[in-house]
Amino acid sequence: MPTSENESPPVYREIAEALRSAIASGELADGDRVPGENELMRQYSVARATARQALSVLINEGLVVPIRGSGIYVRTFRPLRRHGPRRLSRELWGTGRSIWQADAADRGFETDNIEVSEDPAPEHVIRALGLAEGARVVRRRRRYRLDGRPMQLATSYLPLDLVAGTPITRVDTGPGGIYARLADLGHAPAHFTEEIRVRMPNPVEARDLRLTAGTPVLEVLRTALTDDHRAVELNEMTLDGSAYVLQYDFDA
Amino acid sequence: MPTSENESPPVYREIAEALRSAIASGELADGDRVPGENELMRQYSVARATARQALSVLINEGLVVPIRGSGIYVRTFRPLRRHGPRRLSRELWGTGRSIWQADAADRGFETDNIEVSEDPAPEHVIRALGLAEGARVVRRRRRYRLDGRPMQLATSYLPLDLVAGTPITRVDTGPGGIYARLADLGHAPAHFTEEIRVRMPNPVEARDLRLTAGTPVLEVLRTALTDDHRAVELNEMTLDGSAYVLQYDFDA
Repeated sequence: MPTSENESPPVYREIAEALRSAIASGELADGDRVPGENELMRQYSVARATARQALSVLINEGLVVPIRGSGIYVRTFRPLRRHGPRRLSRELWGTGRSIWQADAADRGFETDNIEVSEDPAPEHVIRALGLAEGARVVRRRRRYRLDGRPMQLATSYLPLDLVAGTPITRVDTGPGGIYARLADLGHAPAHFTEEIRVRMPNPVEARDLRLTAGTPVLEVLRTALTDDHRAVELNEMTLDGSAYVLQYDFDA
Repeated sequence: MPTSENESPPVYREIAEALRSAIASGELADGDRVPGENELMRQYSVARATARQALSVLINEGLVVPIRGSGIYVRTFRPLRRHGPRRLSRELWGTGRSIWQADAADRGFETDNIEVSEDPAPEHVIRALGLAEGARVVRRRRRYRLDGRPMQLATSYLPLDLVAGTPITRVDTGPGGIYARLADLGHAPAHFTEEIRVRMPNPVEARDLRLTAGTPVLEVLRTALTDDHRAVELNEMTLDGSAYVLQYDFDA
């Protein structure tokens, strides 16, 4: 907070700590309703502003989630496991399945808000794909949902001179998706680099991913390279940080 | 916030959006001081509470950072690149260097708050290391700092029957660290799994990593396995989310 410590009485912190302990011990379990402002006011004999501040602390820590018109609940954390190397193996997309199926198994997943355009490459895309100044790219935006819940926003960039007129420029890229089509063109991805950053969402991301307060996002920036190390795709992904575990396996 | 939308006038959101745009456009650059409460009150003719609320929004988004007794500044983001597979290659620790050196290059890094103890294995460690019920482990806690700034907290667990009486139970494990000592014992790590989660910090982590508001942490859970797939270490790491880019390279 921008205010100095000594302006706030510490009692809201004590209340927050009591609730935090109850969550840590399991006394308040995943999905349980936590005491509301009125209950905290009675229980601790404090003003509404103090009760509210205690709850705000836990909301900003992401421990509890306010559900409008219902109450505040302990966050339920059952993330999807996203296995970096396995989901991108050629055995998957090479046989016409989608990468997303590797994560979601038999759960109901869908892609929506698909937008495809042909644009001048932004500066960072020129660098990542090793393009000439002024080069154009196909940009594919989409959102992934699992059982109706938005999980991820993604924007892929591919060199236009490589993919112009192919199914990669259409909304439906066909079985196996972008990577299978790149393989059809003789540019199959052989190597991947993923960079992971974490930050709080901006308001547009919070809206599109329906994030509650205290939920950070994971930024995953993937570059796909061919066998001869030509960069053929840059994919900028924004993941609901409460919805994912990322896994990477490698050798010493 | 736990309060209903219509209790708050939307003007604080407009002010937050104006400042957010100024940061996005570069008008307010990394490390710049942003207008304080008094300046916002004058500029927008609003009450102090409104100005404070606008700034709180940006603080909770992690876009700006309050420095006590000085002001509020645009967050400076120059993260350390942590290259998963490369930093754990045997070529590094096998020649007596520390893993941390792969990240920090020639910058000043140090380890502090080192605590070594021998304890009954917690339940999740029993599962991760495939131990018998009631088995004991060596637990090593430490904090990593770069140029004085706390970057990471880490707690490693190793089976006591494997490492009892070795330098792994001492504060200084010697050149190449834990992995070089495991190799001395004939249990060199050959495979690694890293799981990444993101969440907001708890108050102890926020204190030990000196995190400002709006800074999430990365949890990295690493399991080290020998050539014959015996798990020899579980390492639970908590990273300052604003200080790191994690990189993983792999093949299709």
